Amino acid sequence: MIIVMKAHAEPQEIEAVVQRVEEMGYKVHLSRGEARTIVGVIGADEHLIQNGTFEVMEGVERTLRVMQPYKLASRDFSEVDTVINVNGVPIGSTKIAVMAGPCSVESREMIIETARIVKEAGATVLRGGAFKPRTSPYSFQGLGEQGLQFLAEARELTGLPVITEVMSAEDVPLVGEYTDIFQVGARNTQNYSLLKALGKQNKPVFLKRGISGTIQELLMSAEYILSGGNMNVMVCERGIRTYETATRNTFDINAVPLLKELTHLPVVADPAHGTGMWQLVAPIAKAAVAAGADAIMVEVHPDPSHAWSDGAQSLTPERFKRLMGDLRLVAQAVGREI
Amino acid sequence: MIIVMKAHAEPQEIEAVVQRVEEMGYKVHLSRGEARTIVGVIGADEHLIQNGTFEVMEGVERTLRVMQPYKLASRDFSEVDTVINVNGVPIGSTKIAVMAGPCSVESREMIIETARIVKEAGATVLRGGAFKPRTSPYSFQGLGEQGLQFLAEARELTGLPVITEVMSAEDVPLVGEYTDIFQVGARNTQNYSLLKALGKQNKPVFLKRGISGTIQELLMSAEYILSGGNMNVMVCERGIRTYETATRNTFDINAVPLLKELTHLPVVADPAHGTGMWQLVAPIAKAAVAAGADAIMVEVHPDPSHAWSDGAQSLTPERFKRLMGDLRLVAQAVGREI
Amino acid sequence: MIIVMKAHAEPQEIEAVVQRVEEMGYKVHLSRGEARTIVGVIGADEHLIQNGTFEVMEGVERTLRVMQPYKLASRDFSEVDTVINVNGVPIGSTKIAVMAGPCSVESREMIIETARIVKEAGATVLRGGAFKPRTSPYSFQGLGEQGLQFLAEARELTGLPVITEVMSAEDVPLVGEYTDIFQVGARNTQNYSLLKALGKQNKPVFLKRGISGTIQELLMSAEYILSGGNMNVMVCERGIRTYETATRNTFDINAVPLLKELTHLPVVADPAHGTGMWQLVAPIAKAAVAAGADAIMVEVHPDPSHAWSDGAQSLTPERFKRLMGDLRLVAQAVGREI
Amino acid sequence: MIIVMKAHAEPQEIEAVVQRVEEMGYKVHLSRGEARTIVGVIGADEHLIQNGTFEVMEGVERTLRVMQPYKLASRDFSEVDTVINVNGVPIGSTKIAVMAGPCSVESREMIIETARIVKEAGATVLRGGAFKPRTSPYSFQGLGEQGLQFLAEARELTGLPVITEVMSAEDVPLVGEYTDIFQVGARNTQNYSLLKALGKQNKPVFLKRGISGTIQELLMSAEYILSGGNMNVMVCERGIRTYETATRNTFDINAVPLLKELTHLPVVADPAHGTGMWQLVAPIAKAAVAAGADAIMVEVHPDPSHAWSDGAQSLTPERFKRLMGDLRLVAQAVGREI
Repeated sequence: MIIVMKAHAEPQEIEAVVQRVEEMGYKVHLSRGEARTIVGVIGADEHLIQNGTFEVMEGVERTLRVMQPYKLASRDFSEVDTVINVNGVPIGSTKIAVMAGPCSVESREMIIETARIVKEAGATVLRGGAFKPRTSPYSFQGLGEQGLQFLAEARELTGLPVITEVMSAEDVPLVGEYTDIFQVGARNTQNYSLLKALGKQNKPVFLKRGISGTIQELLMSAEYILSGGNMNVMVCERGIRTYETATRNTFDINAVPLLKELTHLPVVADPAHGTGMWQLVAPIAKAAVAAGADAIMVEVHPDPSHAWSDGAQSLTPERFKRLMGDLRLVAQAVGREI
Repeated sequence: MIIVMKAHAEPQEIEAVVQRVEEMGYKVHLSRGEARTIVGVIGADEHLIQNGTFEVMEGVERTLRVMQPYKLASRDFSEVDTVINVNGVPIGSTKIAVMAGPCSVESREMIIETARIVKEAGATVLRGGAFKPRTSPYSFQGLGEQGLQFLAEARELTGLPVITEVMSAEDVPLVGEYTDIFQVGARNTQNYSLLKALGKQNKPVFLKRGISGTIQELLMSAEYILSGGNMNVMVCERGIRTYETATRNTFDINAVPLLKELTHLPVVADPAHGTGMWQLVAPIAKAAVAAGADAIMVEVHPDPSHAWSDGAQSLTPERFKRLMGDLRLVAQAVGREI
Repeated sequence: MIIVMKAHAEPQEIEAVVQRVEEMGYKVHLSRGEARTIVGVIGADEHLIQNGTFEVMEGVERTLRVMQPYKLASRDFSEVDTVINVNGVPIGSTKIAVMAGPCSVESREMIIETARIVKEAGATVLRGGAFKPRTSPYSFQGLGEQGLQFLAEARELTGLPVITEVMSAEDVPLVGEYTDIFQVGARNTQNYSLLKALGKQNKPVFLKRGISGTIQELLMSAEYILSGGNMNVMVCERGIRTYETATRNTFDINAVPLLKELTHLPVVADPAHGTGMWQLVAPIAKAAVAAGADAIMVEVHPDPSHAWSDGAQSLTPERFKRLMGDLRLVAQAVGREI
Repeated sequence: MIIVMKAHAEPQEIEAVVQRVEEMGYKVHLSRGEARTIVGVIGADEHLIQNGTFEVMEGVERTLRVMQPYKLASRDFSEVDTVINVNGVPIGSTKIAVMAGPCSVESREMIIETARIVKEAGATVLRGGAFKPRTSPYSFQGLGEQGLQFLAEARELTGLPVITEVMSAEDVPLVGEYTDIFQVGARNTQNYSLLKALGKQNKPVFLKRGISGTIQELLMSAEYILSGGNMNVMVCERGIRTYETATRNTFDINAVPLLKELTHLPVVADPAHGTGMWQLVAPIAKAAVAAGADAIMVEVHPDPSHAWSDGAQSLTPERFKRLMGDLRLVAQAVGREI
C-alpha cells in the first residue's frame, strides 16, 4: 500500500503515519518528492489492511493499494486453471459447459420435459429455480422443497447434474441434499452469512456477480468461500446495471477475458440476465464464447409466454437447439469444443 | 398496464394478447393508432402482473406500467406521514431524529463513552454494529452477541434507544432481543429471506437503499416488510454507486424529496456512507435536512484513526458537536427542529 | 404518446390536457381505468412532440412514448441494411471491414509504415488522428493539417481509404479535403453544430456513441446527419462509462445486436476504447464479430510504448496480424468473411 | 506518479521503465517490496505525463497518479477563493448569486416580462438560451441572434447582467457581442475547440459538468480555459447520469463541497437539470445552498406548460418568489446571504 501525504503535510503528521504503519507490523519505505511525501507500506499481507485505515489521519491525501485485496482467488495463488468436476462434467476445461433449463421449476412434468429437451440439444447441466428471489412480494416465489424434488427426479431420468439457487444460510443443508451445484444469485453476492455457510460445503458453488458489483468485489466474495475451505467456485458474469435502459442489464463482455487473467476459477456467462431479451441471448452467448467463457447458462422454457418468471429472456426449445449448433461453430473457431 | 404492439403486428397476435389479458382476469381497452395498436389492461391489481409476461409474446414491442408496483408503501395507501415511535423518540415528525454512534461496537467502554458523547451533543438514537458485513473475509466481522450486550448496556446508562444491523433471517430473534430498531444494510436490501422474517416482527425496521438500488426497488423491499404485517418501516438514502470515483458513493439528494412524495414512510439520510469522507459529512447532512429528511444517521468515533471499520467517514466528538449546532440552524430555516 | 393522469386528477385537468393535445394537431383517445385516466395521443408525427410538454401540466403523472423519437435511422424507414461504399470498400455487407492504424498520426514515416503493415495484414481502411480531443490541455493535440497530408500520402501509397476525426463544424471543409470518412468522436456525439455541418456533406460519417450516450441518443444524433441529407452514416459502439473501473470503459456488447435490430445503418465496434487495455482488444474484437458487428476499428502502432497517445490500448503489428487470423475464423463461424 | 510492476517482472523490464522515466526528464525512486517493485517518478510536472505512457510497457501492472492532472484550477495554485465580478455582481463571495430566467428566449415580450419578474424576486443574473442544443433535430433550436438581441434589451431595461449558451467556437464572437457570461452546456464540456476559443476571451465563462463527466474532468476542462489566459471561470454541478430513472439526472450534491475543497473557482448549482422535475427544484436548491454552493441557476417561465423547452423543470413566477424567500433563510443558517 502507498500512502500519499498532502502537499503541506507537517513533519509530525508524517511521523504519526509512519508509527501507525509500524505499529501494525509493516515496514516503511519513505519517499520525499518535490511536492509530496509518499509512505510505502512493505509487507506480504497487504490484503489484511482495512480500507480507510490511513485516510482518516491528519495530513493524508489518499492511499493506493499495490496488491489485490484477494489472495486464494488470484493468479498469484494458482497460475493453472481450476477445473471443477461435476458428476463427470468438467467446468473450466477446453470443453465448454452449457447449463440450461427454465428460470423456475413450475411442475414435475415441466422440468422433466425441459430436461429432456436441453439434454437432447447438448446441454451438460440442468438449471431450474426452486427458491426464487423476486423484486415483488406479490410474485411467484418458487415451489421450494417440492421444486428441488422435481429437479432431482429430472436428474435421475436424464443423468444431467443439476444447479439451483440457494438464498440464505439456513437453506444450505436443504438445498445441499438435492443439488449438484449451489447457485448464488446476483442479489446475494455479498450475503456474507450465506457465503460463509457455503465455504464449509464440499459441493461446487456458482457465484454470480452482483447487480452492480465490481470485478474485484466478485473475487472478494469468491475469497469468502475459498477461505472457508471450499475451493470449487465458479464465477459468473450476468450483466451489470448501467444508465442504459434499452436492455435490462449491460452484459460486461470485458469481464470475461479480464476474469480469466485475474483468477484461476472457471468463468461462466449468463446472457439471459445479461440482456433481458431473448432476441439478444444467442448473439451474446456466441460473443461470450468468442471472448473466452468456460461455460454458458441459458434459460429454456417449453412455452415462454406462459412462464411463471423471466419468460421474456427464455429461449424456446427450437431456438435453443439452433443456438447450440451456432455455439459449436464459434467454439471451434476459438480452439474449443462443446 | 399498457401493451404497445409492433408496427406490423398481425391481427392474430393482437388477439392472442387480448386473450391472455382476459385469461388473467383483467379487462381490455383497445386503441388502434395510425402506426400501432395499443392494448390497455384495466384492473386495480396491476401490481400483481409480473414483469415480462407480455414482452415474450409475438407482435409485442413493449409494455408500460401505469401504476407503481408497490401498494402499502405508496401515497395512494396513506396520504398522512407515518410517525414511528421508538421508546418515545418520534421518527417522521417535524422533530428531526439524529442517530449517532460508531460504525462497530469495539468494546464495552468504547460504546458507553460514545453513547454519552452523542447524547450530550443532542443525538436521539444510538447506533453501533455488532454484526458487520465486510467486503473482505480478512476484515473484522463484529463482536456478535457480545456487541449487542454492550449496546444494551449503553442504552441502560444513557436512555438512548439503539439501532443495530441484522444480516440474516436466522439472526433476527437474537438481534431482536437487544435492539430497538432493526437495521437492514445496503447489501441486504434485496435479501428477501431477511425481509420476510422482519415482516413478522413488531419492532421498527430501518431499511437502507441498495448500493445500486432504484427508488422503486427500495419501496418494493419496504413492501415485503409491510405486506408481512410490520408497518413500522423507515427508508434510508445512503448514496448510490455511480461512475464518479472522487467519493465512495454519490449521495442521491434527489431521493429525499422524491421519497417524501412517493411514500408515507419516514426518510432517513446517511451522509457518512453517502460520501465516504468525513470532510463531506457535515455539508451533506445539512443539505439532507434542507431537502426534507426526517432523520440523519452519522458515524461518531472517539478516535477515528484507530476505528476498526469506516474510520475515514467517522466524525470526532468535537466535529459531531459542531455539526449538531449547524443542523439546528438549518432545521429551523426549513420549519423544523432538532 | 400516452399521458397517464394522476389518481385524483380533476376533470378540468384532464380537459386541459385534451385541449392541449388537440391544439397541437393530434387526435385524442381517452381511456378511463379504475384508478387513472389515460390520454392517448394519436398521430404519425409523435417524434415531433418535445419531451416535457405534458409533464408540466397539473394532474399529469407521466408520459410514455409509443414510437421511437427518430425516423430516418429506424427500421420502420428501411428494413434493408444500408451498405456504404467507401472507394470500393463496402461497409455493412457480409464482408466485415477492418479499420486499423495509429491513434495519432505522429510523422510521415510512421503513418506510411503503419499503413503498409495493416494493409498487408488485411485491413481495409486506414485510421489515424490529426485533430485529437485530449482531456488535458498539456497533452499532444495532433499534427493538424500536416497530419491530414501525411494520411493522404499513405492512401496514395497503399490504396487504403482513410478515416480521421473532425472536431468542430469549422474544420469540416479542411478535413473533407483529405479524408474518405469523417469520424465523430465520443465527446462530440452531441455536438449538434458539427452534426448539422456533416449533414450537408456527401462523404460518409462514422459516428461514435457518446461516453455515456444511450443507444437512443446515438440514433438521434445519426438522425441529425440523416435529416440534413447525408444518408451515409455508420454508428459505432466504443464502450460506455459505468461504475466498473477495472477497465477504461465497459464495452456494451448488447448494443451490437440491438442496433442491428433498431437501425439499418452499419454497426462498427471499437474494442480499443471499449476496453482501454491491449490485452482485451483481441477477445472483444472476436466477441463483437460473433455478435454481428459489420466492421471493427482497432489501433495499431509500430511501437506502442512510445505512442504519443493511447499506447496502452494499441496493438503491435504482430498482435494485429494474429488477431486478423483469429477474426477470419470467427467471421466464418457466423457466416461472414473478412 | 507511481508505477507498480508485476509480481514477476524481469529485471530488464524494470530497467526499461526506469530508462523511459529518465528519458522523459524525471527522476526515479525505486522501492523493492517483498512482492513487487515500485517505480516512483519524481518531478513537479506530473500533469504533463500522458495517461497510458507506462501501462503499455512489459512488466508494468498499473500506474497511480500522485498529483491532480490540473494545475491552475487547483487549490495548490490558489488557496484564496476566486470572486468573479459580473457588471458589479460578485460570484464566489459570501453573497450567493441567483441566475434565473427561461430555458429559451421565446420572444421579446416574454424575456422582458420574465426578466422583470425574476429581478423583482431578487435574482441577480438573467439567463435565457438563444442557441439550444436539442437531442432531436425536430425540436425548437433557439432564436439565434435575434434571441441574443432580446436578451440584451432585457438587460437594458432591468440592469441584470445576462448569461447565455454558446455552442461552438465559431459562435464565440457573435455571442460575445451580447452576453455578460458565456455558458458552456453539459454536452460541450469536452468540446475542446470551444474551450480553447473561450480561453482567449475576457468575459467570464460558466462551465457545466458533462452529463457523465467526473469532477476531475470538469476541472481539466476548466484548465483548458484557464491555461488559455481567461481566469474567470465558474464551474457548475447540474446532475449526472446514473442508473436511476426516477429523476432525469442525479444531482451530485457531494460535488458541491468537494469542488470547494479542490478548486478556488466559484461553484454553481443547477437544480433544474439536476432533477428534471419542478417539484424537486426548490428542495435541491436549498440543499445546494446548505452544502456550500456560491450560486444557483434556476429556470423560470411565465407559463411553463407552454414553454418551448424544459417546461417540466421550470418554476412559475410564484414558485420562484417563494423559493427566494426560503433560500434566504437557508443562506443565513449557513452564514451567507442572498
